[in-house]
Amino acid sequence: MKEIIAIIRMKKMNETKQALIDAGISSFTALGRVLGRGKGQVHFDILQGAEDGHPEAIEQLGGAPRLVAKRLLAIVVPDDMTQAAIDAIIKTNQTGKPGDGKIFVTPITDTVRVRTGETGDVALV
Amino acid sequence: MKEIIAIIRMKKMNETKQALIDAGISSFTALGRVLGRGKGQVHFDILQGAEDGHPEAIEQLGGAPRLVAKRLLAIVVPDDMTQAAIDAIIKTNQTGKPGDGKIFVTPITDTVRVRTGETGDVALV
Amino acid sequence: MKEIIAIIRMKKMNETKQALIDAGISSFTALGRVLGRGKGQVHFDILQGAEDGHPEAIEQLGGAPRLVAKRLLAIVVPDDMTQAAIDAIIKTNQTGKPGDGKIFVTPITDTVRVRTGETGDVALV
Repeated sequence: MKEIIAIIRMKKMNETKQALIDAGISSFTALGRVLGRGKGQVHFDILQGAEDGHPEAIEQLGGAPRLVAKRLLAIVVPDDMTQAAIDAIIKTNQTGKPGDGKIFVTPITDTVRVRTGETGDVALV
Repeated sequence: MKEIIAIIRMKKMNETKQALIDAGISSFTALGRVLGRGKGQVHFDILQGAEDGHPEAIEQLGGAPRLVAKRLLAIVVPDDMTQAAIDAIIKTNQTGKPGDGKIFVTPITDTVRVRTGETGDVALV
Repeated sequence: MKEIIAIIRMKKMNETKQALIDAGISSFTALGRVLGRGKGQVHFDILQGAEDGHPEAIEQLGGAPRLVAKRLLAIVVPDDMTQAAIDAIIKTNQTGKPGDGKIFVTPITDTVRVRTGETGDVALV
């Protein structure tokens, strides 16, 4: 199993979700907003203000070069669906402009469905 | 070392924590709320509203089929405590009804305690 | 590639970021606040209140023994920069007092830059 973590534009979530469903991947977890990705000048007092919900801070964050609020999407898939998931995310999010996002793939040793105690790929569906 | 990520019902956190302490696992990190897990109809504008703290949005989220706000709990344990941690989480969260949650296990290559620079299992206690 | 997850004091973020930039690591993701790490008495109704932004709850959280609100910082680096990143985080955050934080290292199988489709270390820069 693999966990696929995608950091994408906030407005792309619905479309990305639909593309994943179309690829046969229906279960996922949205981990909320991520603030501060970028190579540049994140000011963490502004970040703090944005987290506290001050619109001015959110605006300042969004306007900084190479810095935008993003949404983090995490899904866990069987090994053989990893590429299909990546393709669906790229297809939906690739505009060719900076800020299209990143995808990280990490190994998952096991998954347990709490309700039944099932483990492995079967716990994912 | 393993990281155990449990996505469980919000109201089960205190009880889960106590079960983990009883199993000898006392240090952990609560990573806050996760919204949007489910196979079904997540509307991300509602999700957005819920994150912004609007009670109506939170209510709508919670009421959607197969969709509930969850808490994400993350703990890092030595390899030989992985099963004990999973058992404690299952014992506390298994009601047999949909929504009991999922547990994901991922490898952790190393842990460092910043205060002392200690690494490995000893940095976990 | 490795993901380095550091749970550090909130006020140390700017300084930590500068130290990482000085070490040649410029791209990273701040994953916001983490509440509830500790060996002790986390009351999750207080945690809930703190997440909802009630200052009294945040204060109570911060005052509990071995319990403070932390910031979680996540960066993904090529394998050969792992130690440099850890060193930069330790140098900036080690005060010798409890609460200096923890660093966790996890394997990353692959990274994809969505804009170009590039994978591997080159997608990190």
